[in-house]
Amino acid sequence: MEKFEVTILGCGSAVPTLNHNPSSQVVNVRDKLSIVDCGESTQLQLRKSKVRFMSVRNIFISHLHGDHCFGLLGLISTFGLLGRTLPLHVYAPAAYGDLLERQIDFFCQGLEFKVEFHPLDTEQFQVIYEDRSMTVSTLPLDHRVPCCGFLFREKPSLPHIVREMIDYYEIPISQINNIKMGADWKLPDGTIIPNSRLTRPSSPPRSYAYCSDTAYKPDLVPHLRGVNLLYHEATFLENRIERARYTHHSTAHQAALIARDAHVGQLLIGHYSAHYLDEQPLLDEARQVFPNTIAAKEGMTVPVI
Amino acid sequence: MEKFEVTILGCGSAVPTLNHNPSSQVVNVRDKLSIVDCGESTQLQLRKSKVRFMSVRNIFISHLHGDHCFGLLGLISTFGLLGRTLPLHVYAPAAYGDLLERQIDFFCQGLEFKVEFHPLDTEQFQVIYEDRSMTVSTLPLDHRVPCCGFLFREKPSLPHIVREMIDYYEIPISQINNIKMGADWKLPDGTIIPNSRLTRPSSPPRSYAYCSDTAYKPDLVPHLRGVNLLYHEATFLENRIERARYTHHSTAHQAALIARDAHVGQLLIGHYSAHYLDEQPLLDEARQVFPNTIAAKEGMTVPVI
Repeated sequence: MEKFEVTILGCGSAVPTLNHNPSSQVVNVRDKLSIVDCGESTQLQLRKSKVRFMSVRNIFISHLHGDHCFGLLGLISTFGLLGRTLPLHVYAPAAYGDLLERQIDFFCQGLEFKVEFHPLDTEQFQVIYEDRSMTVSTLPLDHRVPCCGFLFREKPSLPHIVREMIDYYEIPISQINNIKMGADWKLPDGTIIPNSRLTRPSSPPRSYAYCSDTAYKPDLVPHLRGVNLLYHEATFLENRIERARYTHHSTAHQAALIARDAHVGQLLIGHYSAHYLDEQPLLDEARQVFPNTIAAKEGMTVPVI
Repeated sequence: MEKFEVTILGCGSAVPTLNHNPSSQVVNVRDKLSIVDCGESTQLQLRKSKVRFMSVRNIFISHLHGDHCFGLLGLISTFGLLGRTLPLHVYAPAAYGDLLERQIDFFCQGLEFKVEFHPLDTEQFQVIYEDRSMTVSTLPLDHRVPCCGFLFREKPSLPHIVREMIDYYEIPISQINNIKMGADWKLPDGTIIPNSRLTRPSSPPRSYAYCSDTAYKPDLVPHLRGVNLLYHEATFLENRIERARYTHHSTAHQAALIARDAHVGQLLIGHYSAHYLDEQPLLDEARQVFPNTIAAKEGMTVPVI
């Protein structure tokens, strides 16, 4: 199966602690790397993670709170020092455009690569990035400032060739691509071998959704239906639901409700309040509603399956 | 002896590594805390260090390269989240004033404390801060952008009281302060006991100089003469002196020449290039010229004696 995995660089919340770094992840889809959120120390976490971070092409910023973007400038600066020439694409709420440009002009003169800023409309569900392997779409969230999550959706792969049939019918290598694209095969005697005997379907496309930071937002459910892996913030326990409402965050219980109602494959919780020294109670609370839940931790890589 | 010590939060150079964080230190003079330079992750390093960082009053920024200031915004933001009300004073090259203000307006709305920006003229040797315990002065350095070091100089303490003499002459507590300030004591029979018999001089005032980043700059020597502890950057070994010249940095050998010529008490080297996986060769090189040299390391606290 082709690579599709998420590496956690930081899963704490606004106040950094000795246990958790601020929000950041690397999403690897078929060896194309994206960073999702970029809190302070992201570049240090990248080094620890052994991710080949110079090849990151896209950085997606969910919202403009410092714990989700204060690491961006340092990362851009280091890319410059390390001689990057590949353009870097930054997707972030529109309001950041001017300030980012001014910060780069001030601190990162002489970059040999281009930083392309793509302003996000955080209120629309829309495709913001597409290549031949995947699409990335925004997921409007409910936070104190404009904020959206991101949905990474693999494109369908071409079907697999059934090697034995190719050999049996002596089909030349030059025709393999046509057959992958759906062509039948005609034998010298005119017999048609239907494509379905020469190929078997590839795995169904997988998807990963990142939802941080947000109040409980059940209208996300139809957009998350069937995703293989859902990262949903779980800043508080249910006994602090008033605090969650006030700050536009979710409880672990609420994260699990979203996962259950959207029939996702697996739930990954994170964005823990600094209030919790141990995330086990958050995990326990979520698992009561949605058993296939895991707790994010710095350095962890979760396959999307 | 009253507290005067330096805690290293980061002593790497521009490109952060797994061994070293970017530049930052805490200078503690009689429990008044200053931060000197504030590279990315300073707030995390502060937490690791167990320094009571909410009581930091002053932040001194030597120059506006990211590895010396990218941690400032995160630290200010966290001070806000933790409910700081004590004003914070930021001393940095003048050019930073506007951008810092804009960054704070953008990212740190609703701070309950004031950030007072003090623009530095990096070309003057001048006192920029004074309280009853110490002065801080700028030390113009030679770098690619406006840059200055900082000289922390303790003020003389009042002399110590000689307890036995006070008891012997039955001098009341109410007079102790006058005697510390230099008064003699008159016995009931009119005999004058000179102050010199009632007190002994306090320790001579100590000083700490921070010099990073800079090319070899021998005209600093008179200004550093006799400081107890000198932090001097030692980015390269002498065999890379061309690189040091080109980038306006110093070699370990050059740092030691400054220390030797200024007759400082101890030399503390740092700001190691990411090129060196191990700083022992830098330390060895410096010690050949100035034996009382130590190598900075994250988490280390060096007393100024």
